Amino acid sequence: MTTFEKKGLTKKSENSSEWYHDVVLRAGLADYSEVKGCMIIKPYGYAIWENVQAVLDRWFKDDGVQNAYFPLLIPLSYLQKEKEHLAGFSPELAVVTHAGGEELAEPYVIRPTSETIMYKTFADWIQSYRDLPLKINQWCNVMRWEKRTYPFIRTSEFLWQEGHTVHQNEEDAIEMTLKALAWYKKFYEEHFAISVYAGVKSSAEKFAGAHKTYSIEMVIPDGKALQAATSHHLGNNFAKVFDINFLDESGNKILPHQTSWGLSTRAIGGLILSHGDDSGLIMPPKIAPYQVVILAIGGSDEKEKAVTEHVKDLSQQLKSADIRVIVDANFKHSMGYRINEWELKGVPLRLEIGSKEIDKQEVTYIRRDSFEKGNFSLGNLTSEVTNLLEKVQADLWARSEQNKQQLTVDVENYDEFKKVIENRRSFIRAPWCEDAACEAKIKEETKATSRILELERIDSDEDGSCIACGKPSKHHWLFAQAY
Amino acid sequence: MTTFEKKGLTKKSENSSEWYHDVVLRAGLADYSEVKGCMIIKPYGYAIWENVQAVLDRWFKDDGVQNAYFPLLIPLSYLQKEKEHLAGFSPELAVVTHAGGEELAEPYVIRPTSETIMYKTFADWIQSYRDLPLKINQWCNVMRWEKRTYPFIRTSEFLWQEGHTVHQNEEDAIEMTLKALAWYKKFYEEHFAISVYAGVKSSAEKFAGAHKTYSIEMVIPDGKALQAATSHHLGNNFAKVFDINFLDESGNKILPHQTSWGLSTRAIGGLILSHGDDSGLIMPPKIAPYQVVILAIGGSDEKEKAVTEHVKDLSQQLKSADIRVIVDANFKHSMGYRINEWELKGVPLRLEIGSKEIDKQEVTYIRRDSFEKGNFSLGNLTSEVTNLLEKVQADLWARSEQNKQQLTVDVENYDEFKKVIENRRSFIRAPWCEDAACEAKIKEETKATSRILELERIDSDEDGSCIACGKPSKHHWLFAQAY
Repeated sequence: MTTFEKKGLTKKSENSSEWYHDVVLRAGLADYSEVKGCMIIKPYGYAIWENVQAVLDRWFKDDGVQNAYFPLLIPLSYLQKEKEHLAGFSPELAVVTHAGGEELAEPYVIRPTSETIMYKTFADWIQSYRDLPLKINQWCNVMRWEKRTYPFIRTSEFLWQEGHTVHQNEEDAIEMTLKALAWYKKFYEEHFAISVYAGVKSSAEKFAGAHKTYSIEMVIPDGKALQAATSHHLGNNFAKVFDINFLDESGNKILPHQTSWGLSTRAIGGLILSHGDDSGLIMPPKIAPYQVVILAIGGSDEKEKAVTEHVKDLSQQLKSADIRVIVDANFKHSMGYRINEWELKGVPLRLEIGSKEIDKQEVTYIRRDSFEKGNFSLGNLTSEVTNLLEKVQADLWARSEQNKQQLTVDVENYDEFKKVIENRRSFIRAPWCEDAACEAKIKEETKATSRILELERIDSDEDGSCIACGKPSKHHWLFAQAY
Repeated sequence: MTTFEKKGLTKKSENSSEWYHDVVLRAGLADYSEVKGCMIIKPYGYAIWENVQAVLDRWFKDDGVQNAYFPLLIPLSYLQKEKEHLAGFSPELAVVTHAGGEELAEPYVIRPTSETIMYKTFADWIQSYRDLPLKINQWCNVMRWEKRTYPFIRTSEFLWQEGHTVHQNEEDAIEMTLKALAWYKKFYEEHFAISVYAGVKSSAEKFAGAHKTYSIEMVIPDGKALQAATSHHLGNNFAKVFDINFLDESGNKILPHQTSWGLSTRAIGGLILSHGDDSGLIMPPKIAPYQVVILAIGGSDEKEKAVTEHVKDLSQQLKSADIRVIVDANFKHSMGYRINEWELKGVPLRLEIGSKEIDKQEVTYIRRDSFEKGNFSLGNLTSEVTNLLEKVQADLWARSEQNKQQLTVDVENYDEFKKVIENRRSFIRAPWCEDAACEAKIKEETKATSRILELERIDSDEDGSCIACGKPSKHHWLFAQAY
């Protein structure tokens, strides 16, 4: 760490992966651990997660979703009940074989996801239609053993929320699946200022055990895709094997329909990749742990005392308007060093204040996203700061939207598809016949996987010819190489 | 569950343990799972935990404590570094031996507490006195394999917060240890309305690896003690083995002093045991998931429609004053059934409203703690409800304080001590020479363990004769049988 901090930051444009690792460590988002594939989320990174939680948790609760907590450990036999689910997670399981000084009669796995342990219990909780819909959410850690890890993006242990609902019929379950997907889209767009795609996954790419999987796909500036949240319509696959059923109003025993949906700390990885630049992170104001840093400029002892008092007052003023502010009056370090550090952390707005600014009754501001500089007079500081933070949020969003458009290419045949992959990695919208063999061939030859069929294209047929086999296709799907 | 819900609630006075299990299940706080020793925290129980988190997290942050997240799994070798720590936790460890389809070269244990994995990293984070104090907190799940479990009170997996701090000197570490203890005491007293004891543990009862352990002890109405939170002054035991040190202002390499402190979902067990009665739970208003239930009284269809509209308005009115309200307009069930359910859940204040109340422009209120009944006119409903909730909170506190006093007996010799144990289980304040052999003898013969030496008695010598050996003693300690 120490030696590391002395060298310069890798340029994002030169080596995006090395830049990512550098910035994660140097901005204090996370640290490596000696536990294989597991990272330490440091306070600055965890503060982002807390902001994510606050927003989503409010939306869930307003919709009647209730938080609960189920055991970390799952009897292996539970996973074995749903064959497809087991097959999907089997290679990634961490297994507890000994506890309390003894070998266990049946091993437990650390939850990779909680469908099985929850639904075993839902079968007891649900008796009649009056018990439905049941909407449960859990904020917790999960474990999926990974060979190749990437901080936030892919770690063996990660934090997430998993929503699990049970409904009387398929229609309600589909509505819930799409509602959760819409929450995630809105969250990324309005809070993370990231323009994303939302749609349905192919059969090959769906969640193990789901009827249909919907996902949010982020277009990373390097042209790769990041699956940023998923929402599953589970149908009644799990209800069958876990014997969940209810009596309807006429007393008939009915199989309910279920959904599950989740968003994880991976979101933070997407945030870093989407908005960072050669100077480090760029935090969208709405999710930033600190929205404003007030940098006190040094001078004589007397001046430093006066400016320290002054910035404390300004900080209080902004805080009382619910703006998240941090004061840096650490005169021991050079201005250059201090500016670098706050740019690295991506605080959206920096206010610089020295004797000159006090005399003029103003502050100098510098936007992190554009480095645009200007002055605010003290009289209307709070409203100026509030307005500028909103503008930064809107500008970051616009840049992300533009990035998404520029990095999405429409093609009609395989030659064009391959040319795009070779020239500039991008999302490619192309006709595909929805046959798994074609999907596999494309993946094999181009490393691009089918990402989604966009929501707004599901119901509209667009005739075309599959890029892989040439047979008629109904839809144009998004393909990309993925994280 | 279903058959269970049909039978009556065991009387608390007749069988406190059976009452406890009944009420936990029937009020919807928790459910059993097939995972040995692990329970499911249901939405009503989890809502209490969320309220606990909101209060404590605010206090921690205001003091500069930062939240972070460390891996769930700890290499066994980390625990082996601190011999006493390993010996203390070894019998309770759950061990992961296989992951990703392979046997691991070194097994991992699921964290029973995070000292070792955190301090391994703190050694990297701390270089100079400028990095201190370091104050980190983590909200997470931990695992301590238990043979005999009791919902909330003792489960193999539980949720908690664990604070971990590093300081330049012993004085600062002691101050932090006592500050955390004071937070817990204030929390129990002001939010849970439970009068508790705070003090220091004996050497035999301290945390494995700590220099000194302080704890909060709850006096349960059955006369038993519940250790409800702990705060440890770790000295520099861990700093030595994990090689944490810092350069002071003169450039000398110094070993820092550390603290750790935690409060867990066990707190909810204490809450249930402290305030419940034969009708079920009693929730102190400040921590109650619902502070008020508005019960709409049925009648003709027309009347039910009118009363449903009316209670919706009143609910909105109370909600806008930040009162947590739930409306029950479920006319399908009998009033008796509905009243029973809300009493079982312990909602502190019930408002009943029917056509009669609408005509008179008033509501009938019933306090859960005293069953006192009365009327509020609608004109000043919000302020009346707010005042009454405050009164309920204060009265519950006073009852708890009285309970604590009544169940604490001062004795001067072993005969009196044994007589108290035989007559009525209580906390007993008795002179003890602080020799571990005497403590073991008392435990062996009476099942009472030394709980704490109260904070306010640590610095004042009270000459006495040890109840076990008769030799001179300096302090009167609290003893009790414990959960």
